Amino acid sequence: MYREQIKVLDCTIRDGGLVNRHDFSVDFVRRVYQGVSAAGVDYFEIGYKNSRALFPDPSFGPWKFCSDDDIRSVTQGVEGGAKISVMADVGRVDMESIKPASESPYHMVRVASYVKGVDKAIAMANQFHDLGYETCINLMALSRDRGPELDEAMDQCDKESHAEVIYLVDSFGSFYQEDIEKLVHRARKWIKTKELGFHGHNNQQLAFANTIEAIIHNVNYLDATVYGMGRAAGNCTLELLLGFLKNPKFDIRPVLDLVAKEFIPLRQKHEWGYIIPHMIAGQLNMHPQEALDVRKGEDAENYRLFFERMVSSGLD
Amino acid sequence: MYREQIKVLDCTIRDGGLVNRHDFSVDFVRRVYQGVSAAGVDYFEIGYKNSRALFPDPSFGPWKFCSDDDIRSVTQGVEGGAKISVMADVGRVDMESIKPASESPYHMVRVASYVKGVDKAIAMANQFHDLGYETCINLMALSRDRGPELDEAMDQCDKESHAEVIYLVDSFGSFYQEDIEKLVHRARKWIKTKELGFHGHNNQQLAFANTIEAIIHNVNYLDATVYGMGRAAGNCTLELLLGFLKNPKFDIRPVLDLVAKEFIPLRQKHEWGYIIPHMIAGQLNMHPQEALDVRKGEDAENYRLFFERMVSSGLD
Repeated sequence: MYREQIKVLDCTIRDGGLVNRHDFSVDFVRRVYQGVSAAGVDYFEIGYKNSRALFPDPSFGPWKFCSDDDIRSVTQGVEGGAKISVMADVGRVDMESIKPASESPYHMVRVASYVKGVDKAIAMANQFHDLGYETCINLMALSRDRGPELDEAMDQCDKESHAEVIYLVDSFGSFYQEDIEKLVHRARKWIKTKELGFHGHNNQQLAFANTIEAIIHNVNYLDATVYGMGRAAGNCTLELLLGFLKNPKFDIRPVLDLVAKEFIPLRQKHEWGYIIPHMIAGQLNMHPQEALDVRKGEDAENYRLFFERMVSSGLD
Repeated sequence: MYREQIKVLDCTIRDGGLVNRHDFSVDFVRRVYQGVSAAGVDYFEIGYKNSRALFPDPSFGPWKFCSDDDIRSVTQGVEGGAKISVMADVGRVDMESIKPASESPYHMVRVASYVKGVDKAIAMANQFHDLGYETCINLMALSRDRGPELDEAMDQCDKESHAEVIYLVDSFGSFYQEDIEKLVHRARKWIKTKELGFHGHNNQQLAFANTIEAIIHNVNYLDATVYGMGRAAGNCTLELLLGFLKNPKFDIRPVLDLVAKEFIPLRQKHEWGYIIPHMIAGQLNMHPQEALDVRKGEDAENYRLFFERMVSSGLD
C-alpha cells in the first residue's frame, strides 16, 4: 500500500547546477524535464531565481536566474509535465520582477534559509504566497543549527508563514538515520499545520537511507536528483527513490534512460558523488566548501592531510 | 558511549577477490593488512580456503586458496595485527589439509551457506571448531530465503553448531533498513546463545545504513571493506563504518591512506560500486550474476533493456 500524499521533487538542475555553474543547455534541461515528467515525478526544480544584477559574472549559466522565458523554453509543448519549482535565496531576488503565479511558468517557490535567517525567509515566502505561488521554506544545515533557536524557527514557520511545506535540509550530509527520526519528531512538535519535506546530501552514502527514514516518520515531500547529481557528494538518487516508492504512477525507466544517455557522460566532465574529502566533511559535520576547494588543488587525493586539517581546525 | 562487544571484520581481500579472481600480489595484501590492523580492525579476512584441485584454472590468484604459507607471507612480522579469518564454502575445502588452529596462521573460519545447505555448513563449521578455530556460519541470500526454512536453519545454528557468530548476509543488496530490523528480531527468537553478524551489499547505497540498523538492534559483528571493494556493487565501506563507531581504538587515517594509495588506482582497473545494473538487481532482489554479465557486453549501458529483461524474466 502506498501513501498518496507523498510528492517527489526532482532538483537535478537546481542542486546539480551548483556543480557546473548552472550551465546546462536548454536542450539538456528539456530532455531531463521530459524524462522526469514521464517518470511521474511531481515537481521539477529548474534553478535559482536570482537577480542577474547581483551576479554579473557572465560564466554563470541561465539556471542561476531562471527568467520566465528560459523556463518556458523548457516547458513549452511538454504535455502533462511536472510542476515547475524555483529556489529563492533571501536577499538575492529582484522581487519587482516577479509576476503573479497566474502569469508565470512556475508553480512553486522554495525559499532556502539558515535557521538564523528565518524571519526574512518567512517574509519572502509570504510575498510569493501572496502572488499566488505554492511555497516552501527549506531550513538548511540542520546538523549544525540544533539549539533552541531551531525550535523557535520551526514554531515561527508554522505560525507566521503561509508555506505549504517546511523542508528539513541535511546540507552537510552529516545525519544518521537516528538523527532523522529525532529531528522529524522535534519538528512535529512545532509544525502542526503544514507538510514536512526532506532534502539529504550523500556524503556518507546515507541520503537515500535518510529519505526512507523520513518517509517512515510521515515526511511527505522528498527531494532527489537523477544519478544523485548535486553539490559535492550529491543527493538522494531519483532512481533509488522511485524504486522504493510503491505508487504505480512512478516509472523508473525514463530515469534509467536519462542516466545512461545524459548523466554518465556528464559525470565524466563534472565531479559529484562518494568522494573521500566529502565523506570526511560529512563525518565531521562541516560545510562542503573546504572539501570542494581541496578537490581543485594538488592535494585532492591526500585524504589524511585533509582529515588532519579538518579535525585540527578551531583547536589552535 | 561505545559498545565494547562490537567487532569489525575487514573482508576487502576476500569479497574484493571476487572482482579480480583473487589476484592480489602478496605485497598489496600485506599493505592492506598493515593498514587495516593499524586502524584497529579486529579481523582481516584474507580469502577462501578452497581446494586447488577443484579449481585447476591457473588464472585464479592465491587468495582463492589461502595456503598457510601464503597467509604467513602476509602476516609475518606485522606486530599486533588483526586476527586472520578465512572463508570456507561447503564441499570446496580439502579438510585433510587443514591443520589444527595451534599450527596454522589463521584464527577464524567463516562457513558460507545458503539456507538450504545449513546442515552441511554446521557439520563443516563444527569440524573447524574441533580443530580449535573460532567459527562463524554466514547465512547467505536472506532476502530470497525468508520462508519457514529460515527459522529452522537459525534454530539449528543455535542448537547444533559450536559457531560463535551467525552472520545474516544480504547477498543481493536488496534489504531496506526495516527489513534489517525485522530480520534481526526474527533471528533473536532462535539464536539465543551466539553473537549475530551482518554483511551487506551496496546495490542500493544501503550497506552502511543497514549496518547501522544492525548495530542499533545489537548485532555485534560487522563486515566492511576498504572503499567498499567487493563483488558487484561492493560492501559497506570501512572508512564510513569506522567514522561512525565511537570506540577510540579505531583510527580512520590508515584506511584513508589505503584508499588514496591503493584503491583509487585499483578502481581504475576493476569495477565495483554504484552501477545501475547492480542497483536494478538489488531493487528486484536478484542474484548479481546477470548484472555482472551485462557489464561485460555491448549493452553495459543499456539500462532500460536490462531492466525490462529482469522484470520480465520468469513471466513467460
